[in-house]
Amino acid sequence: MRKKIDYPVADIRHYLEPGPIVLVTSRWQDEANVMTMGWHTVMEFTPSLVGCVIAAGNHSFELIRNSRECVINIPTLEMIDTVVDIGNCSGAKVDKFDRFGLATSPAGKVGAALLDDCFVSLECRIYDDILIDTYNYFIFEVVQAHAAVSPKYPQTVHYTGNGDFMTAGKHLSRRGRFIAQNL
Amino acid sequence: MRKKIDYPVADIRHYLEPGPIVLVTSRWQDEANVMTMGWHTVMEFTPSLVGCVIAAGNHSFELIRNSRECVINIPTLEMIDTVVDIGNCSGAKVDKFDRFGLATSPAGKVGAALLDDCFVSLECRIYDDILIDTYNYFIFEVVQAHAAVSPKYPQTVHYTGNGDFMTAGKHLSRRGRFIAQNL
Repeated sequence: MRKKIDYPVADIRHYLEPGPIVLVTSRWQDEANVMTMGWHTVMEFTPSLVGCVIAAGNHSFELIRNSRECVINIPTLEMIDTVVDIGNCSGAKVDKFDRFGLATSPAGKVGAALLDDCFVSLECRIYDDILIDTYNYFIFEVVQAHAAVSPKYPQTVHYTGNGDFMTAGKHLSRRGRFIAQNL
Repeated sequence: MRKKIDYPVADIRHYLEPGPIVLVTSRWQDEANVMTMGWHTVMEFTPSLVGCVIAAGNHSFELIRNSRECVINIPTLEMIDTVVDIGNCSGAKVDKFDRFGLATSPAGKVGAALLDDCFVSLECRIYDDILIDTYNYFIFEVVQAHAAVSPKYPQTVHYTGNGDFMTAGKHLSRRGRFIAQNL
């Protein structure tokens, strides 16, 4: 289990902008689920907005649309097989938390759970549902964020389609080339 | 210059889903520009849709909104300083193509140019402008795609804020764990 602490919601680009594959947890009435998701983007700092596509065929779609909440959790390379397996079965048929032995903790502001083994968990509420029917596109506000303090750069996993992944490599700074207002 | 060939527009997730920083070229009447962008996501396979945030304060915003077109180009690690510098000056004050010595080629279907040193160039037209005024969010259709045939995995660069970047690391396959319909 990764110990996480509160993280400023306006700064979540740090984790999402690089484009990692994520695990989205949801809960509606007596049902909970988790899905793998790769189509997401930061949309605004304040309010802290994230847009993402959750296809209507996913069991999580109705849970999230009805509850208007979810948690976006970011896994690391150690979890890659679980990430793949979560994306290749349906919550309509199995309890994925049970099948994959996923440890969870209660969120602070939403009903969906935080995944303990992920190094970041972003509690989200639907901010605008205007594109759900047309594009399966949800605009969420991150209302509370949790992040592990170490390691500084957990090794994220990025999906390239066809069952292939790219893993995070070296980090480097170009801070000295930036003008102040862009930092 | 990277030799690029036609690439299927329905497959551009391969390049965009991992979340690289990109360079967006635009042209409107006698003016052309290029900007650095990190907030984007794939939205659909067919039509091939990409959503992205282009802040209204950027000089490129009006060029793209008026022309309803752009090209999304994906650079590699060798270009990181140019990528940063492009993002830290304004096309309202300088001709970035001239300042940074950017070689370009004409696109097939849009007025904006392809950047020769980028390994992927995606010609885009606005598909839906419904979220431009409210979120600076553009929904583009990729109408033609160009990609270099080698190397197989060019080293992309991913922005984490504060002037820091993550570079693409190793690639690995989990194809064997996928069910056929998810590939």
